[in-house]
Amino acid sequence: MAASCIFCKIIRGEIPSMKLFESEKTLAFLDIQPLSAGHALVIPKHHGAKLSDIPDDQLQEILPVAKKIATAASAENYNVLQNNGRIAHQVVDHVHFHMIPKPNQEEGLGIVWPQQDLGKDKLQKLFEEIKSKM
Amino acid sequence: MAASCIFCKIIRGEIPSMKLFESEKTLAFLDIQPLSAGHALVIPKHHGAKLSDIPDDQLQEILPVAKKIATAASAENYNVLQNNGRIAHQVVDHVHFHMIPKPNQEEGLGIVWPQQDLGKDKLQKLFEEIKSKM
Repeated sequence: MAASCIFCKIIRGEIPSMKLFESEKTLAFLDIQPLSAGHALVIPKHHGAKLSDIPDDQLQEILPVAKKIATAASAENYNVLQNNGRIAHQVVDHVHFHMIPKPNQEEGLGIVWPQQDLGKDKLQKLFEEIKSKM
Repeated sequence: MAASCIFCKIIRGEIPSMKLFESEKTLAFLDIQPLSAGHALVIPKHHGAKLSDIPDDQLQEILPVAKKIATAASAENYNVLQNNGRIAHQVVDHVHFHMIPKPNQEEGLGIVWPQQDLGKDKLQKLFEEIKSKM
């Protein structure tokens, strides 16, 4: 828990939230600044800024809960997104997964996909490098 | 398994891939059309088009593996993204999670965030509706 973290405050009940799910390790609530109706956040209660900071056993319920909310919100099309770092569009430094319904082109998450052509050799080298660290 | 699914073919080894991780339920490999160096995909071996189609027990390793790859790729800033439906930018109809490093403004995932003001009353009504279906 971090004293000044807004999501830790929500977990502690110091700030109200529209709770959709709560268990020992996980909390889910509606985003109050949604991109579309049903936009929800699923967070581990364990405080950590980035995914890499959260122990594996604190992550087990995240996707099942996101799935459950997507179904409850009758979202046919939707994005699940988790941002790490300011440059990657993270605003609150407590890991959170967005479940964002995509009802039409205008509402929901907008995605820009600047595909690269790294080339086969560079990709193979990169692969070996990452693989060696797994 | 689906006969014509490209990811099922990768799982079966009928199409080669740069495998970063494989277990009974999960496969991870480099995206060959990356948005940035280190862009990887983590998929459940269970075939299903959308997150809602995948049983909870097939989802347990997804985030730990995405985390592991982010670390191995030395990604400081990154996005984890899973798209459901064409309109939500899904291209292959087998659930896949992108781990996309965000090294700078130009490379990696581009995000457009069309925030809405639903208003307190509408949000509260929506909350009650979704909550009742959880």
